[in-house]
Amino acid sequence: MVKATIVGASGYMGGELLRLLVRHPGVEELIPTSRTYAGKPVSSLHRNLYRILDVPFVNPNIEDIDSEIVFFAAPESEWFAKIPNLLDKGVKVITLGGKFRIQDASLDSKIYPGYENQALLDERVYGLPELYRSKIKKARFVTNPGCYATSALLALLPMIKFKDSLDLNRLVVTSVSGTSGAGAKPSEFLHHPEACGTVKPYKVLFHRHLPEMEFILKDTFKKDLKLYFTPAVANMARGIMSFVTVFSEKLDVDLSDNFRNFYGKEPFVRIVYGGDENVPQLRDVVDTNFCDIGVNLDPVSGRILVLCALDNLIKGGSGQAVQNMNLMFDFKEVYGLDLIGGHP
Amino acid sequence: MVKATIVGASGYMGGELLRLLVRHPGVEELIPTSRTYAGKPVSSLHRNLYRILDVPFVNPNIEDIDSEIVFFAAPESEWFAKIPNLLDKGVKVITLGGKFRIQDASLDSKIYPGYENQALLDERVYGLPELYRSKIKKARFVTNPGCYATSALLALLPMIKFKDSLDLNRLVVTSVSGTSGAGAKPSEFLHHPEACGTVKPYKVLFHRHLPEMEFILKDTFKKDLKLYFTPAVANMARGIMSFVTVFSEKLDVDLSDNFRNFYGKEPFVRIVYGGDENVPQLRDVVDTNFCDIGVNLDPVSGRILVLCALDNLIKGGSGQAVQNMNLMFDFKEVYGLDLIGGHP
Amino acid sequence: MVKATIVGASGYMGGELLRLLVRHPGVEELIPTSRTYAGKPVSSLHRNLYRILDVPFVNPNIEDIDSEIVFFAAPESEWFAKIPNLLDKGVKVITLGGKFRIQDASLDSKIYPGYENQALLDERVYGLPELYRSKIKKARFVTNPGCYATSALLALLPMIKFKDSLDLNRLVVTSVSGTSGAGAKPSEFLHHPEACGTVKPYKVLFHRHLPEMEFILKDTFKKDLKLYFTPAVANMARGIMSFVTVFSEKLDVDLSDNFRNFYGKEPFVRIVYGGDENVPQLRDVVDTNFCDIGVNLDPVSGRILVLCALDNLIKGGSGQAVQNMNLMFDFKEVYGLDLIGGHP
Amino acid sequence: MVKATIVGASGYMGGELLRLLVRHPGVEELIPTSRTYAGKPVSSLHRNLYRILDVPFVNPNIEDIDSEIVFFAAPESEWFAKIPNLLDKGVKVITLGGKFRIQDASLDSKIYPGYENQALLDERVYGLPELYRSKIKKARFVTNPGCYATSALLALLPMIKFKDSLDLNRLVVTSVSGTSGAGAKPSEFLHHPEACGTVKPYKVLFHRHLPEMEFILKDTFKKDLKLYFTPAVANMARGIMSFVTVFSEKLDVDLSDNFRNFYGKEPFVRIVYGGDENVPQLRDVVDTNFCDIGVNLDPVSGRILVLCALDNLIKGGSGQAVQNMNLMFDFKEVYGLDLIGGHP
Repeated sequence: MVKATIVGASGYMGGELLRLLVRHPGVEELIPTSRTYAGKPVSSLHRNLYRILDVPFVNPNIEDIDSEIVFFAAPESEWFAKIPNLLDKGVKVITLGGKFRIQDASLDSKIYPGYENQALLDERVYGLPELYRSKIKKARFVTNPGCYATSALLALLPMIKFKDSLDLNRLVVTSVSGTSGAGAKPSEFLHHPEACGTVKPYKVLFHRHLPEMEFILKDTFKKDLKLYFTPAVANMARGIMSFVTVFSEKLDVDLSDNFRNFYGKEPFVRIVYGGDENVPQLRDVVDTNFCDIGVNLDPVSGRILVLCALDNLIKGGSGQAVQNMNLMFDFKEVYGLDLIGGHP
Repeated sequence: MVKATIVGASGYMGGELLRLLVRHPGVEELIPTSRTYAGKPVSSLHRNLYRILDVPFVNPNIEDIDSEIVFFAAPESEWFAKIPNLLDKGVKVITLGGKFRIQDASLDSKIYPGYENQALLDERVYGLPELYRSKIKKARFVTNPGCYATSALLALLPMIKFKDSLDLNRLVVTSVSGTSGAGAKPSEFLHHPEACGTVKPYKVLFHRHLPEMEFILKDTFKKDLKLYFTPAVANMARGIMSFVTVFSEKLDVDLSDNFRNFYGKEPFVRIVYGGDENVPQLRDVVDTNFCDIGVNLDPVSGRILVLCALDNLIKGGSGQAVQNMNLMFDFKEVYGLDLIGGHP
Repeated sequence: MVKATIVGASGYMGGELLRLLVRHPGVEELIPTSRTYAGKPVSSLHRNLYRILDVPFVNPNIEDIDSEIVFFAAPESEWFAKIPNLLDKGVKVITLGGKFRIQDASLDSKIYPGYENQALLDERVYGLPELYRSKIKKARFVTNPGCYATSALLALLPMIKFKDSLDLNRLVVTSVSGTSGAGAKPSEFLHHPEACGTVKPYKVLFHRHLPEMEFILKDTFKKDLKLYFTPAVANMARGIMSFVTVFSEKLDVDLSDNFRNFYGKEPFVRIVYGGDENVPQLRDVVDTNFCDIGVNLDPVSGRILVLCALDNLIKGGSGQAVQNMNLMFDFKEVYGLDLIGGHP
Repeated sequence: MVKATIVGASGYMGGELLRLLVRHPGVEELIPTSRTYAGKPVSSLHRNLYRILDVPFVNPNIEDIDSEIVFFAAPESEWFAKIPNLLDKGVKVITLGGKFRIQDASLDSKIYPGYENQALLDERVYGLPELYRSKIKKARFVTNPGCYATSALLALLPMIKFKDSLDLNRLVVTSVSGTSGAGAKPSEFLHHPEACGTVKPYKVLFHRHLPEMEFILKDTFKKDLKLYFTPAVANMARGIMSFVTVFSEKLDVDLSDNFRNFYGKEPFVRIVYGGDENVPQLRDVVDTNFCDIGVNLDPVSGRILVLCALDNLIKGGSGQAVQNMNLMFDFKEVYGLDLIGGHP
């Protein structure tokens, strides 16, 4: 049993961590921090937790933290300087911001400026269990992947076996996301009258999850490659549907089967089938830690279209963080994550 | 042909005024004002008007206004002090804020404090054409009704004939609105992730359109009465559906026919029919100046349920304001307002 | 440990039963029946259950059922004739259709014609745990309440203490529901282009949950009363928000506290607080078995406005059915139902 | 002034034709046909037209048609055999179905089997005014483009100038559409509970608008090329947002300016600007005949991303058909089409 501190628990990611951990069989105490809401009950802000977690937010006194694990759900760079000391005290750390995900100091500090620490960057493990499970199990410091990056990577990684047949310089990823991905802070872009009943592309020339995707892919495929990523938000709070196009020589294989074998006993990745075309449904993964993938192969051109659905706040965020914690503490990997989607 | 100034043209109401007036056969020039956006093209903010109205917003120098009519789409009280001078110069004025709608100085100044002017309050005509058409035609100063008030009043006014059979102290109005009614300013309440896929009641104990409804009804029915009003927002940008419950002695009449007769040749009120039950569709009125009404009479209990649908920004706002302008300048009443809803 | 048969498991209610029961600690086997889909994996239809419940639907041979409990999620009257025999064999039965909810043979057979059985009607227990817990614990045959009825009853029942101060003949309930309440069968009314981005009232003069509400209320309050009920669907799949207006003499009490006391240790009813006004959020109850209630008292008029939010398929359907099963088999009441809503 | 017959006026495309033509200054009479609804008022089905077009649907007796133009909004092949006779009588014809759009008999009859007529196919003009305006002006028989095809073509055509720099074999188009594109017939796929709050890819390996796009592009670019098209529906009734990716050598041009020059005085194509990135808004084009295009050029890779927004039922359907009619009869091109989108 562990105590868990969530730094920045007032945001959406922090709130979902609390929701998932409050019923986690391996967690005995939750310490939610928030400078803004310190003293107020968690459930006054995350009203879904009313009568479930009514303890107050506390001030984040990182130095005095008495817990085995700290989740940094707040992206502010000031927190990063606290990590080495925590690790020294034997506290494990999972960060949910983008900092340190890209294990290339110059790229990392360009995109996430304000703090540099080569030793931390060297030590960090990228928290994609399907790729780095054994490293995560031994890690003290895990950087949780971005929501779009999780989606694109889980769709692309199984193709490593065929990498020499693919045009790796023309990977095209278009992702349609729920609006919760942008966080809890109101903005004109996501003011409801502006964002409902529509589809809004944004950051179409550069989204910072793009270099993250490319870095992990290059590191895995051991090849240079180029990815073109376009995000958009649609009229829903949660979920990401990614359309991943890969140009390929004609592959004479059952690609779905290959994906199924690749993910083998993965508890949270499901390769869906559907007759002529394999299309996952967002509904099946929203509010769960599942990532559902549909693999489609154009028999004439060889083009591969992978459709990938996950919940941006769970498998694309807090759920994956809990999965990482489970690995780091040798808990059952599904603890706290046995959520099943509804129909409809 | 008139020149029209829109003060506060950067908001949703102001934007819709521009959209309706830009193709109005009686308007030769539009002067959109905005302190915040002065100098920028209207279409940089209201992008729907791109290549249609690309003139810049100007600073609102009310004293120097050279136009026959001024619409005050901004609710700030500071503007009201400018009105007497405008009227003196022969400029007609339509206000879209709440101030002066309730022709009772103490009530008005309680709800809309910051400026008082009994002469203005005495002169103001309440801009509901179906009720005050002849007064509006002669008016210099019209206060445009609130969106919820328009909806409730158009649903209730035709029952004046039966007022002695009704329980006027238990009028119940529940209204479900699109989110544009709250204006263009982002808020946590209307942050898309919080407001999509749901129904959110708000101001359930007091919304300031309530005394407005009661004031006009009392003034018309010449009776004391009490109305209970509950607003909510749903997952749509535009439109109000009001559920109006009236307890009554059993009326042995075709109530729909009575409504139809009451509104006679009104160009923008349609009494819908539908077999067993009469239910208007929001889709039919959104983006139009129509108000569609369905009248339902419980044959056993005598309860009357009027369902009333309109577009909060058009018939509940800028469209009605244009209708009032048309009356004030003796234009055809439908000028600028010949919009037809789509299906679906 | 029990085996559970779900008759009509292909519908939304049946699917949600499977989802809730598949992880239920007291259920060792699930037998999903469907004439239409017999032989096909459950997860080919309810794709959310892929890799969770991939067993096939079986033909519903009620006579040969080998299970301790049967849920009838299909409303067809033909099934009802099978119930006496099941009860004789010691099988417990929960029905999710409307039949037998109203314990008045003439009213029941008028609304739900096709089968009559006075003994069954006499025996049935209405499955609202908050009202009939002790009876449910001893019951062999439970009729699960309608979704709207659950919502209205949970909002109204706590006022029994003040019943002599209330105008029980003018109870007004307006409910806005997600579209899943109408079931899985496509229709023009719920064709997406017709039903998205809007609010659609329907069955405004008579919905068959109305007499159900009145019957239970009269039976509980021991008084005659009259309720006016108007349902509508909005642009969301799940959830019901009910607006319940009760006219009352002025009550000099903290009504929220009274509701809180009334529901005491109920595991699934939460009385929300919110400062000036008490408004529950649908988001907090969707995908859970919670019913969240906000109580508002107009200090001037005495009018009471209760806002009541629940998930129509869970607390308003399958979740409540599982809660009833838990009571009938002396399982912990929360088994299978420890779902927490998300934010957002 | 012409009389216009709409065959199959009960569908969404037919309804929008009626809505646009009923206020068209060049149309003196509308003859809406429908076998299913013959005798019933148009406005009993298209309720948006209540009190605007209450004439009844008539049986489609094509032989006796007394009108200058016939729109075939019904896709059934039986109608096509009637076209030659109509043309012989001097009646002009616009078809809104897919038949004959692809001027390649074998491909056309493979995708749209059931009727063949080489002379008709030879004569047909593809009704994309921006490409074939002069031909349309002289045409007797116009096939109106598909909604997705309109979107992709308007996004791609301006690049003809640079065609030798582009990788024409790897054109990637992902389109997110409102659900009205699938027509008025209810289906499980578009049953509201299944289709709301989500994004659903479909026909991901082959949509029949794909060969249409390729045929017109090849015909225009005079080069072989290959396009990869993936459609999806999102939670909205109307609108298409297309994401068009084109790989290119680095172009040292202002591509937006090139697009602007290409479309010059086109009344309905707008090239939007937006600072760092050029993103059109669906809201600005829904309920209008505009197509808004944003051009984005990745300065490093040379990748071009064109975002293209239009209303699938107007510029992608009935609006474009009216535009074609205007050209064929030498009406002003904007007649009946001066719709402006709202904000929000």
